[in-house]
Amino acid sequence: MKFLIIGGDAAGMSAASRAKRNMPALEVTVLEKTQDVSYSACGMPYNIADRDAAVENLVVREARVFREKQGIDLRTGHEARSIDRAARTVSGTTSEGREFTLPYDRLLIATGASPVYPQIAGIRQPGVLALKSLEDGRSIKQWLSQRRVERAVIVGMGYIALEMCETFRLRGIEVDMLKPRPVFLPWMNDQLAAVVRKEVETQGVGVHLGLTPSAIERRGETLRVVSGGTALEGQIILIAVGVRPNSEIAAKAGLALGPSRAISVDPNLRTSDENIYAAGDCADALHVVTGRKAWVPLALRANRGGWAVGDHVTGRPAALQGIAGTAVFKVFELQVARTGLNWAEAEAFGFKPAEVVIESRSRAHGHSGNKTIWVHMTADKGSGRLLGAQMVGPEGVAHRINAAAVALHSGLTVEQFSQCDLAYAPPFGPVWDPLLTAANQLMRQL
Amino acid sequence: MKFLIIGGDAAGMSAASRAKRNMPALEVTVLEKTQDVSYSACGMPYNIADRDAAVENLVVREARVFREKQGIDLRTGHEARSIDRAARTVSGTTSEGREFTLPYDRLLIATGASPVYPQIAGIRQPGVLALKSLEDGRSIKQWLSQRRVERAVIVGMGYIALEMCETFRLRGIEVDMLKPRPVFLPWMNDQLAAVVRKEVETQGVGVHLGLTPSAIERRGETLRVVSGGTALEGQIILIAVGVRPNSEIAAKAGLALGPSRAISVDPNLRTSDENIYAAGDCADALHVVTGRKAWVPLALRANRGGWAVGDHVTGRPAALQGIAGTAVFKVFELQVARTGLNWAEAEAFGFKPAEVVIESRSRAHGHSGNKTIWVHMTADKGSGRLLGAQMVGPEGVAHRINAAAVALHSGLTVEQFSQCDLAYAPPFGPVWDPLLTAANQLMRQL
Repeated sequence: MKFLIIGGDAAGMSAASRAKRNMPALEVTVLEKTQDVSYSACGMPYNIADRDAAVENLVVREARVFREKQGIDLRTGHEARSIDRAARTVSGTTSEGREFTLPYDRLLIATGASPVYPQIAGIRQPGVLALKSLEDGRSIKQWLSQRRVERAVIVGMGYIALEMCETFRLRGIEVDMLKPRPVFLPWMNDQLAAVVRKEVETQGVGVHLGLTPSAIERRGETLRVVSGGTALEGQIILIAVGVRPNSEIAAKAGLALGPSRAISVDPNLRTSDENIYAAGDCADALHVVTGRKAWVPLALRANRGGWAVGDHVTGRPAALQGIAGTAVFKVFELQVARTGLNWAEAEAFGFKPAEVVIESRSRAHGHSGNKTIWVHMTADKGSGRLLGAQMVGPEGVAHRINAAAVALHSGLTVEQFSQCDLAYAPPFGPVWDPLLTAANQLMRQL
Repeated sequence: MKFLIIGGDAAGMSAASRAKRNMPALEVTVLEKTQDVSYSACGMPYNIADRDAAVENLVVREARVFREKQGIDLRTGHEARSIDRAARTVSGTTSEGREFTLPYDRLLIATGASPVYPQIAGIRQPGVLALKSLEDGRSIKQWLSQRRVERAVIVGMGYIALEMCETFRLRGIEVDMLKPRPVFLPWMNDQLAAVVRKEVETQGVGVHLGLTPSAIERRGETLRVVSGGTALEGQIILIAVGVRPNSEIAAKAGLALGPSRAISVDPNLRTSDENIYAAGDCADALHVVTGRKAWVPLALRANRGGWAVGDHVTGRPAALQGIAGTAVFKVFELQVARTGLNWAEAEAFGFKPAEVVIESRSRAHGHSGNKTIWVHMTADKGSGRLLGAQMVGPEGVAHRINAAAVALHSGLTVEQFSQCDLAYAPPFGPVWDPLLTAANQLMRQL
C-alpha cells in the first residue's frame, strides 16, 4: 500500500514515522517543498534571540534519519500542486522545475499554514519579513546579522508578534508594534490584557493601536510603515498579523473546508474523501467545549494528528477527542495562558456566560519572591459548566492552565473543578491554588 | 445557635469565619490551646531558613481581627479535654489552670495532628525538637540562634525531614538523616526516589537508611543519636518520623475513627454524631481514586473542610468530593510531586496496576536551560483508568501534577488523559507534555 504525504513538518513526519513503525512494509513517501523537515517552528523566536545559535538547532530529526533509519521516501524540494482524486495521484514540481506525478492509496495533506500578508503597498520587499517556516527564521537571522538594525516595526500583536518583540529587545533593537484594531489582545479579558500591555510597554516597546498601515516605504536603509499622517521606522519590518491554512490544494480537489477555510476532518483526521487525510495547521478540529469545528493551528494538535493518521492508515484505532484551545506564550517576564472559551466566545456559542477576574499570588503567604497572578474564568450560568480560563503572571502560569484544560476535556462544572485536590507547597503557590480561588468566586455568580 | 470549635488553625478558623459570614447572628466560639491561630505551618521550613524573618510573618490573620472585625469569640490558651455528647458541652482547662465547660449546638473538632515521637531513650530533652506548630518553629529558631549549631541530625525522611534538611543547609549546618527502613521515599517509584536521593546527597546531606535509633545521648553541647554500634552527632536533633491525628478527645467521646485513627467523617464533615463535625489534620477523607477512606493530613483539605463545615452549619450545601492525595514539596533544586496511587497502593486496593517511568525535558527541543523531568504513571489494566502520577524535576513539576489530579477527580482513562489539549511553548516544555508522553507510553501496556 502506498501512503503519500504532502508536507514534511510536524504532522507529516509524525504520520510518516508512526505509519512506518506500525507497518514496516508500507510504502511511505513524503513530499516537502522546502529543504527543511521536522523542526520546532515555535522555537524560532528564541533561536533568533541568540545570535550565535544555528537555526538548524531547531531540527528535531534530520532528513537522513527518516530516509536511512526509518525507510521513509522523503523527497525535499518537491512541491505538490494538485490532487487527482479519481486517479489517486498527486502532481507537482520540484525545485529544479521538473514535474512529477505520484500515485497513492492513502494521502495525507499536511501543508501547514502561511503568514497572512495584508494589502499594503510595498509589503513585498527586502527587509519586510514574516516568521513561520525555518527558512523565514534563517532570513530574519541573516537580515539582523548582515546589517545594522537599530529599530524594528512589527505589524500585528498576536503571540508571535509579542514573542518577537522580546526577541528584538534581547538583541538590543528598539521595537514599535502597530495594528488597526483598537484593542490589545482582544481575545483576552481586558484586565489581564492590560497587565500584558503594561509589561510590554515597561520593556520599552511602543504599542500603537488603531493604526492601519497603508504603505511600506524605503528611505535608504530604513523602512517606514505609513499609517495616515504618521510613520513608524525601522531597519526591519515583521509582518505578524496571523496565519491562514494552506488548503488551496484541498479546495481545488473539491474537499470540504471548515472554519477559516481549514480542511474539514473527522475524528480520524479523514477529509470528505475517505482516502485523504488532513492534519496539522491546515486542518480543523472539534472543540471539546463547543462541540463545533474550530481552527486553532498549534503544535501539539499537529503532532497528535500526525500520529493519529499514522495509526488509522495502518488499521489502528485513532479517534481524537478534539482540542480545548489551550495555549501559552512567554513575553518578557510574563507567562500568558488560556484554555477554552472567553466570555465573548461563550456567548457566541449559545452559553450564558458568567465570568470572574481575580488577583492571587504565586507563592504562599509570607514566602519570599511572591508575585501576583491574575486569573480569568468563565462558566455557563445554566449548567454550571466550566467554559474557559486565562492566566497571566511572572511564574506559575504555564503549567497551571493544564488543570483547567483537563477539566474542560472532562466537562466538569465549576463546582466540581473547585473541589479538585491540587498540589500545595509554599514555594509554588497559596494553599488555595489561584485556579481554585477563581472557581470559588465564580460559583457565587452561578 | 452556638457553634463551638476546638482548634484555631486552618480548619477551625476557616469554619469560624465562614459560618460567621454566612450567619452573623451565629454565636461562634473557638478554643485554641496555644496563643497562635491561623498560621501557615507549611511555611515554617522557609521561615526558619531566614534567620532574620519573624515567625509571626507566617500568621495569616491575627487573633485581633477574628475577634474585633469578625465577631468571633476566640479564646486562646483554652485546651479542650473532653466532650459530653449527651449534655452537648465541652470541658477543658485554660493555660492559667482554670477549668471551663461550654455548651454547643454544633461542635467542630479541628485539633490537627501532632508529631510522632518514637520510643527512643532520651528523646524528650532540650535540643530534640519536632516541627508542627508555630511554637515548634519558634523553638527551633531560638535554639539555632542561641547557640553554635554546626551539625544537625534528622530522624525520619519524609517531606518535612527533606524540607528541613534544606533549611539546615541554608543556615550552614551539616546534616545527617537516618531512619530504620531500608528504602528512601518508599511511597515513590524507585527510579524517581533515586533522583531525589542523589540531589540530597549532592548537597552534602548524609543519608543513613536502615538505622534504628535506640537512644539520644548528650555529651556537653552535642547530642548523639545512637543506633547499634554507630552514632550520629549534632547540636540539634529533629524528630520528623510523621504525624498522628489528635483524635483522643473524639475517641474518648465515642466517635467513630477511620484510617490511622483519624476521626471518621462523611462528605459533610460530620462525625458519627450528627451535631459534631471534624475537619483538618484530625479527620479522614474519601479518596476519589479508591472510593475508600484515607488519612492525608494536608493544608488544602483542612481549609476546604473548614469552609464546608462553616457552610453546612449554616444550612448551605457543602458536600466534599474527596481527596486525590495530591502533594508537592521542594528539596534543594528539585520539585517532587505526586497525586493518586502508587503501584503498591493500586495493587493493595484491588486494581491490576500497570506503570511506566519516563524521562522527559522541562523545555522544548533546542531551548536553552532545558532540564530533565521524570514522570511515573500508574493505571488499571482492567479499566484503563488513570490511578496516579509522580514527578521529579528542577522545574515544571509543581503545577503540572495538577493536570493529573484533575484527571483523577474526573475518573479519566489514560487514553482520555493522553488526548487532553495541554499548553505548549518552548520555554515551558516539549510539544508533548511529559505527562502526555507518560500516558502515551503507559497505554501500550494496557
